[in-house]
Amino acid sequence: MPLWNIYHPVGAYTAEDKQEMATRITDIYTIPRFYVGILFHEQPKESFYMGAVARDDFVRIRLDHFARHISNDSEWTAGWLKKADAAIAPFVRDRGYHYELHVGETPRELWMIDSIRPPRPNSEAEKEWKLENRAAPFDPEKG
Amino acid sequence: MPLWNIYHPVGAYTAEDKQEMATRITDIYTIPRFYVGILFHEQPKESFYMGAVARDDFVRIRLDHFARHISNDSEWTAGWLKKADAAIAPFVRDRGYHYELHVGETPRELWMIDSIRPPRPNSEAEKEWKLENRAAPFDPEKG
Amino acid sequence: MPLWNIYHPVGAYTAEDKQEMATRITDIYTIPRFYVGILFHEQPKESFYMGAVARDDFVRIRLDHFARHISNDSEWTAGWLKKADAAIAPFVRDRGYHYELHVGETPRELWMIDSIRPPRPNSEAEKEWKLENRAAPFDPEKG
Repeated sequence: MPLWNIYHPVGAYTAEDKQEMATRITDIYTIPRFYVGILFHEQPKESFYMGAVARDDFVRIRLDHFARHISNDSEWTAGWLKKADAAIAPFVRDRGYHYELHVGETPRELWMIDSIRPPRPNSEAEKEWKLENRAAPFDPEKG
Repeated sequence: MPLWNIYHPVGAYTAEDKQEMATRITDIYTIPRFYVGILFHEQPKESFYMGAVARDDFVRIRLDHFARHISNDSEWTAGWLKKADAAIAPFVRDRGYHYELHVGETPRELWMIDSIRPPRPNSEAEKEWKLENRAAPFDPEKG
Repeated sequence: MPLWNIYHPVGAYTAEDKQEMATRITDIYTIPRFYVGILFHEQPKESFYMGAVARDDFVRIRLDHFARHISNDSEWTAGWLKKADAAIAPFVRDRGYHYELHVGETPRELWMIDSIRPPRPNSEAEKEWKLENRAAPFDPEKG
């Protein structure tokens, strides 16, 4: 987590484009890099409707991140959206694609990587995971 | 938003079918039409299980809409489900397909179209977006 | 509901593998079997990023289940994750694939199968649905 699902027109992006987009999106985050999942999906025009119009000039992004337990943190939200927009701008706006993005929030508790429930945010164990950039068993007292 | 993901058997729908389905679904809503996203996904039988049975006679719909801050508005819910069911009936029940639909709720705050955070519901700016059927910068006092 | 979306490398699983995986996952649940939906999606390496690295050795699972109205039921959560992990282990860990799984929670009220709003959990009507393993109209007093 987070997980980005990016639905885009057929042929819109090369493998190099997708690599660069994935890097730019991953760079938004301060969490361990391997937490960030990005899935690209080619969506044919006849299967892609916005406002009941078949589109081949649109990128629709749906992502999940963890629910934040701070209600109405509008400053955080505005900042995050700005960063997300900047990360993808070269691949949407700058290429003439319209886009829409929305975020679902899911509970951190129902989450598992390689059979392990990840450590608490900002814990010692999370710092180690970030440093090593992979999941590994950890001492519960550190996580 | 909303965003409909419709997983259906291979070859179940022609481009014309999908266009008509998209129109009928979009017609349920009173929001600006271009808000409504619908993605069709062909799902081969060997990759589509309901009750651990591979199916080619099933349509599985998962959609997101905004969380409503009215708790237990059961009348609204019943009415909405009835409209959704009527919209898709000619393409599921009437063709012998079974279907299941469920809805996830996401926060309106984490939403962006073409780099813009959409105006508040029923605001002046939203009325303009609806009329013009597209996103455009707006005076914050109107949105 | 629940609905599992399993994104996996191209060619990772045969039809038989997917059938067995679907059976093992469905067996976790005590609800009517036909409630459990599982969709497999082949995801090419160049469209599958974890930590900004293109991967063909990773299985990413995102599922929805109903929100539980018991807050912080950490024992239930731990038990459920253990069962989910055991169900998929032969197809991930034991084959050298890494995996990540997370769960979104959705409201039971916004749910429909074949035009019917399913009966309440553990109601008489649900017991009948479970026994017959299909949706059918029911007496509202029993559901």
